[in-house]
Amino acid sequence: MPIIDISVPLSNSLVVWPSDPPLHIERRRFLEKDGANVSQLDMGVHSGTHVDPPLHFVPGGATVDQLPLDVLIGPADVVEFPVEESITASDLEARSIPKDCRRLLLRTRNSLYWVRGDTEFHTDYVGITADAASWIVERGIRLVGIDYLSIEPYKTPGHPVHKRLLEAGVVVLETIDLSAVQPGRYDLICLPLHIAGGDGSPARAVLVSH
Amino acid sequence: MPIIDISVPLSNSLVVWPSDPPLHIERRRFLEKDGANVSQLDMGVHSGTHVDPPLHFVPGGATVDQLPLDVLIGPADVVEFPVEESITASDLEARSIPKDCRRLLLRTRNSLYWVRGDTEFHTDYVGITADAASWIVERGIRLVGIDYLSIEPYKTPGHPVHKRLLEAGVVVLETIDLSAVQPGRYDLICLPLHIAGGDGSPARAVLVSH
Repeated sequence: MPIIDISVPLSNSLVVWPSDPPLHIERRRFLEKDGANVSQLDMGVHSGTHVDPPLHFVPGGATVDQLPLDVLIGPADVVEFPVEESITASDLEARSIPKDCRRLLLRTRNSLYWVRGDTEFHTDYVGITADAASWIVERGIRLVGIDYLSIEPYKTPGHPVHKRLLEAGVVVLETIDLSAVQPGRYDLICLPLHIAGGDGSPARAVLVSH
Repeated sequence: MPIIDISVPLSNSLVVWPSDPPLHIERRRFLEKDGANVSQLDMGVHSGTHVDPPLHFVPGGATVDQLPLDVLIGPADVVEFPVEESITASDLEARSIPKDCRRLLLRTRNSLYWVRGDTEFHTDYVGITADAASWIVERGIRLVGIDYLSIEPYKTPGHPVHKRLLEAGVVVLETIDLSAVQPGRYDLICLPLHIAGGDGSPARAVLVSH
């Protein structure tokens, strides 16, 4: 059972969203002195590989601990989009995504940032347009993932992409590294932490080959 | 596919190990004012449901991102131990644990703390003895989980339980809630965060019914 880790490593050099809390990991207790190594992790819950539940953008929306586990676990299609700008509904339409696709992972040029170990924030990453978000909702897709910090192009006024997806209850998985993944169908296991009432959570996400 | 969540909810009232960093979750950005809800999570990496890799107690030991994913995912046996004190090797011997068991989850009276939503730290939780740790290693078990903050009885001098398990590369899963789980075989999915060089990590752990 080959398992591919699509989570980015959490470290103090990992790029986070500009307005988000900093990511900081530091050892607080030491084996020699204190009997055990114990580190502290401080981070925004939308840093690193993470999921957005509705509450991130929908007033009173479902929280991360309310996301259905059977959406977070199951068959997923990795589809490549060799586009420079945002992925549109017609880009999605053109890729012959399987009709029974319920979890869609978008592989773009963003994945190269992870290969390079890039520690800078880029504003020109590939996201999706609002009509692509509508296409995803209308196709009955329950989870969509992308290989940069946001599925929405930088500074899109009014956040129509997040709102469209999250209002429809589509789980958004962001900051995955698909550079080592060939397009095709896999079993996705995406487990966010069990944060009570959380508006997001860091997650570990892996793909199991069929 | 019924999925049982055995992770405890992370919240500001969750009990953590007395000498560990505090667990604190707070919203930093607000939908109405800032356009999105974004929380910050500060915690010790051994708080909540979490895994211990060798580095927690072994100098130069493997880190949490080096744990093999195929140990964290796979068949697991939930076995009940209605003991008052620590679980011993003879307790393990007496329970007819399947010979092919590679992942063992110990259900004890500790799980009642989670049912009660107990926010106090208890020193008299059920752990395992050093001879039980040796039994686990000798049986070829690769992962062992228990339903309180530590698998080792409180203040055991020299930490022989952790050392024995971690030196043998057995993954230790702590602070799981097995109160809703009947003894038997399940598929365990236990995914810690991908913390580079981490001495531990919070994890989400679920059981899938066979």
